[in-house]
Amino acid sequence: MEEPYPSKDIIEEAARRIVPFVHRTPIMTSSSINAITGLQLFLKCENFQKVGAFKYRGATNAVLTLSEAEKKNGVATHSSGNHAQALALAARNNGIKAYIVMPENSTAVKMEAVRGYGAEVITCVPTQKAREDTLAEVVKRTGATFIHPYNNYRIIAGQATAAKELIEEVKDLDIVMAPVGGGGLLSGTALSTHYFAPSATVIAGEPANADDAYRSLQKGEMQEAVPPNTIADGLLTSLGDKTFAIIQKHVKEIVTVTEEEIIAAMRLVWERMKIIIEPSSAVPVAAAIKIKEHLKGKRIGIIISGGNVDLTNLPFKKHI
Amino acid sequence: MEEPYPSKDIIEEAARRIVPFVHRTPIMTSSSINAITGLQLFLKCENFQKVGAFKYRGATNAVLTLSEAEKKNGVATHSSGNHAQALALAARNNGIKAYIVMPENSTAVKMEAVRGYGAEVITCVPTQKAREDTLAEVVKRTGATFIHPYNNYRIIAGQATAAKELIEEVKDLDIVMAPVGGGGLLSGTALSTHYFAPSATVIAGEPANADDAYRSLQKGEMQEAVPPNTIADGLLTSLGDKTFAIIQKHVKEIVTVTEEEIIAAMRLVWERMKIIIEPSSAVPVAAAIKIKEHLKGKRIGIIISGGNVDLTNLPFKKHI
Repeated sequence: MEEPYPSKDIIEEAARRIVPFVHRTPIMTSSSINAITGLQLFLKCENFQKVGAFKYRGATNAVLTLSEAEKKNGVATHSSGNHAQALALAARNNGIKAYIVMPENSTAVKMEAVRGYGAEVITCVPTQKAREDTLAEVVKRTGATFIHPYNNYRIIAGQATAAKELIEEVKDLDIVMAPVGGGGLLSGTALSTHYFAPSATVIAGEPANADDAYRSLQKGEMQEAVPPNTIADGLLTSLGDKTFAIIQKHVKEIVTVTEEEIIAAMRLVWERMKIIIEPSSAVPVAAAIKIKEHLKGKRIGIIISGGNVDLTNLPFKKHI
Repeated sequence: MEEPYPSKDIIEEAARRIVPFVHRTPIMTSSSINAITGLQLFLKCENFQKVGAFKYRGATNAVLTLSEAEKKNGVATHSSGNHAQALALAARNNGIKAYIVMPENSTAVKMEAVRGYGAEVITCVPTQKAREDTLAEVVKRTGATFIHPYNNYRIIAGQATAAKELIEEVKDLDIVMAPVGGGGLLSGTALSTHYFAPSATVIAGEPANADDAYRSLQKGEMQEAVPPNTIADGLLTSLGDKTFAIIQKHVKEIVTVTEEEIIAAMRLVWERMKIIIEPSSAVPVAAAIKIKEHLKGKRIGIIISGGNVDLTNLPFKKHI
């Protein structure tokens, strides 16, 4: 069945629906980062969410909105990242089968994590075509419902609940920021801001090395992704038609940032706030710092998307 | 003037006194760490304290309890660690001069941090004797009050406020744990537990490679420190007479842990909780895991002492 566009009511319903399953993550501030940057930042810490990322919100909403018939056949997706773990855990917590197609060059740690949540992992050669073909076979064989990682209104409505909580707790935000990859988090953030804090402006951060969303917004139509090459490995994907339409309507600006700016922002948060954020989360922080002259005196909420990093391969270099 | 022993009233006064200056840090739990370890842990997150460590509590209490005459001449200490920064910031926030003696081989980053808080840094050759001699000269020259990093009742009363907050917020704790180096945090934790949760038991964690407190408690008298060699660089110091007397009276057990156990516990907290804790903070976590068979079903509060680490020199190795 075609899913309905995420209206205000649908996002409110999603928020109520997922409450028993997701963490209400804290919103953190840092007087030292505010002093250093001259900004007034409120970080919505989805790095503390289950599976370490906001993805668990959308996956939970998607699983809970399946019909009883759909639930019997389970869910399927292709992902080597946070969506795979999120969907696997959301399915298990609701007694539903999950089938996850993963490229065979995924790390053993990632595959084990997904299996650890009870999902069946199906490997394929690491091309987009093989992923899609393998997924189609799995869906045909099992009757499972394909849950796209972002171009899916159930997913978008779930991701929207993070910004909704931020807006409820921090009054009078002027700006709401999020990173953009496939656009599930950003489109949800933009919708929640539109519905629940209509006077606030939405600004996204995107790696300059993976800037298809920036170029798409500039041109007014979806642009081909150049093969992306960024440390922000949660943002390698490109917009979908559903996320692009929402972003085009409700996002004012996308600010692109360099790899160095991403790493510097990530380090600032690690060192000053003592929290682990992944590079993708540092992207909107870097974007805020980049345009700080325009943001002086504003109250800025930022969705920190997640905290999944490889601790044995960090990008920090010694200070001289 | 001789400082009074930290009675219940004195710790309650210290808590009221420092409230406007210190963060009331959050207490965090992790369902996944509880599931992995079989323990029920409540972490009092002093890594989120100002200057990134509990030390700011004691330093603030020490500065605020100076007489007006003492305030005019400022405070002095020798430290290359968190106490240096904590005393410098506490002094600055109260309009008092601070003189910090640091070994000349301290990193430039550390010296700059202390200077950044407005303190005067006096360097000396890196021996205990040079530190003490240089400090004595500074005190003679300036009339500043020496604030010992731990063997000082004002400091102990300040550190005690972390456990007091933990006990107020988490009811019915069975066990309260802290790391032990010089014993300022542990003695304060033990006193607060004795006064405010008298049915709870205090257990400390100590690196096996710096186990003077363990041996002192076993022998019933203070033992010489063998030159310590541990990643837990906040725990290199040895007990003082004041901290030892309190620990002997109010701490049930000290559990020693290996370097490998410290690193594994630190990694577990980083990966599962997405918070940055320093190796010293991981010591009581490692101790709890080491004796987990004895702690089953207990409610265990742990003081996470701080989050100051060198991000360019982390101990994590690749999983195989």
